[in-house]
Amino acid sequence: MTTTIDPSELDQQRRTFREELIGHGWLLTSRSTALPGLGPAPVAVYDGLSAFIARITRQEYTAGVTPVQFPHVFSARMLEQTDYVASFPQLLGTINSFLGDQKDFRRLIEIYDAREDWQASLAPTGLALTSAACHPLYAWLENSTVDDAAIYELTGDCFRHEPSDDPMRFVTFRMREYVRLGTEEQAKAHRSTSLDISKGIFESLGLDVEIVAANDPFFGRGGVVLANNQLAAQAKFELVTEVYRGTETAIGSANYHDTHFGDEFTLSAPDGSTAHSACSAYGMDRIVLALARRHGFDLGAWPQQVRSALAIAD
Amino acid sequence: MTTTIDPSELDQQRRTFREELIGHGWLLTSRSTALPGLGPAPVAVYDGLSAFIARITRQEYTAGVTPVQFPHVFSARMLEQTDYVASFPQLLGTINSFLGDQKDFRRLIEIYDAREDWQASLAPTGLALTSAACHPLYAWLENSTVDDAAIYELTGDCFRHEPSDDPMRFVTFRMREYVRLGTEEQAKAHRSTSLDISKGIFESLGLDVEIVAANDPFFGRGGVVLANNQLAAQAKFELVTEVYRGTETAIGSANYHDTHFGDEFTLSAPDGSTAHSACSAYGMDRIVLALARRHGFDLGAWPQQVRSALAIAD
Repeated sequence: MTTTIDPSELDQQRRTFREELIGHGWLLTSRSTALPGLGPAPVAVYDGLSAFIARITRQEYTAGVTPVQFPHVFSARMLEQTDYVASFPQLLGTINSFLGDQKDFRRLIEIYDAREDWQASLAPTGLALTSAACHPLYAWLENSTVDDAAIYELTGDCFRHEPSDDPMRFVTFRMREYVRLGTEEQAKAHRSTSLDISKGIFESLGLDVEIVAANDPFFGRGGVVLANNQLAAQAKFELVTEVYRGTETAIGSANYHDTHFGDEFTLSAPDGSTAHSACSAYGMDRIVLALARRHGFDLGAWPQQVRSALAIAD
Repeated sequence: MTTTIDPSELDQQRRTFREELIGHGWLLTSRSTALPGLGPAPVAVYDGLSAFIARITRQEYTAGVTPVQFPHVFSARMLEQTDYVASFPQLLGTINSFLGDQKDFRRLIEIYDAREDWQASLAPTGLALTSAACHPLYAWLENSTVDDAAIYELTGDCFRHEPSDDPMRFVTFRMREYVRLGTEEQAKAHRSTSLDISKGIFESLGLDVEIVAANDPFFGRGGVVLANNQLAAQAKFELVTEVYRGTETAIGSANYHDTHFGDEFTLSAPDGSTAHSACSAYGMDRIVLALARRHGFDLGAWPQQVRSALAIAD
């Protein structure tokens, strides 16, 4: 990411954008909930965007798009299986609940009524927030020979515990992904085709994008090495756009995972080798807000081509 | 709910239905994730259902449908504000993450590598899973005079920690809701209109439904009293259908909240009185699976009227 402005100016831009989004009814904030909702305009844009991406990808991918859907909650052991605990501990979310009996419940109520720490009476459920939209897909396919003709289409909520006032960084956000598993050649071809499709989609919505090599924000063990490996292998490309002046924000990506998930989940290509995989991702909430930044808050004043692509009524 | 069969026979029906759903690719299960995903057929039915309900409600409600969207995560203090901690502690979910520094991180990794209890190193984030789709709406409107002409349309994920093999009882499930706030008369009229609309929607999809007075499954403080009050006040009506022979399953509801949320969130009607509210809810995942139970797993064999309503391609 290229940044040519100082951090305080960037913070100011983020705060201003957030205030504008709230003022125009795009973000619905409250005293009582940490995460904003979306008003009627961004809901209409989201729905239009979702349908537009579905339509274009069906035209452009030659293999068969296969829609599947997974919940935003999975087993906490998935965070172990993907080694997420070691790589991104600061972003994960595990789920606690009250697992006690009636006696424990009376104690919970005493603590709760005394306005003391009632959460200390809860215990791990074994569940966690889904960290990446495509992880449950690999878990579903575990120990199998993959269908290398399928391009799995899924929309998933991802949880990343990085609270921020930046409207481009929600704690929970929606990703549309197109995942292909197969040989190295098939996975790399998917990454490359997907980059072209994504670029075309963004440009037809009036968003100027650049394709840049990128790395995930590894925090934990071997973080710098992992990040440098990703960059050197050109494993991750992001589609970035200028939401804030002087810096770029990723609104999409295309990633080649090598046999990372094939190894973790024991997935084979039809030829018997370990499956390679690649995915193309659309940051749905970010795209919706980037469109507001580009075209303004009044959908009626958006370019006709964009309104038509997103089926926004007159 | 009327149950005329014994529990073990009901359990058998649930297990059989689950196995059929898995066998026909409707439910995507795995060794590693606790919650099933949905295959291409139920995804198509879900999308069609979502659009169908949107279309019919826009025709039938005379006031203006206003789409909004809230995340499936909110502040843990929302569980206090709605007294959910005292009423349904066994269903709630709070979110923990790693909040430590580099030194704490080294300790986390030691524990994790030793396959010990790494979750004990996490701490509450102040966030929780959204317990009811409409709660964030009231939080957004807090301390305001409501727009009594609006019918808020939202689809939200609800978390209820009640793990079960019954496919009609997911731990996280999607609810479509239509919420109206205003005077007692307006709220009650919304509940009554909504019941008619829901019944019409279900019947045009080939689902026989009955409308029954119901209560929420209060667990905690004053649970029996709260439940009986709900029944006596006819505050909650469910639309039930026979998914399993000899018993009924709720797939929708219409609820009059009196001034419950108006009081909790200090909401006023335009005449200055405390706002009353009512909501109409569609259990989206349950409806999708109830349709499979009714019409079978092969969408191509569904009645033409249903396929057409749900825009299922030939």
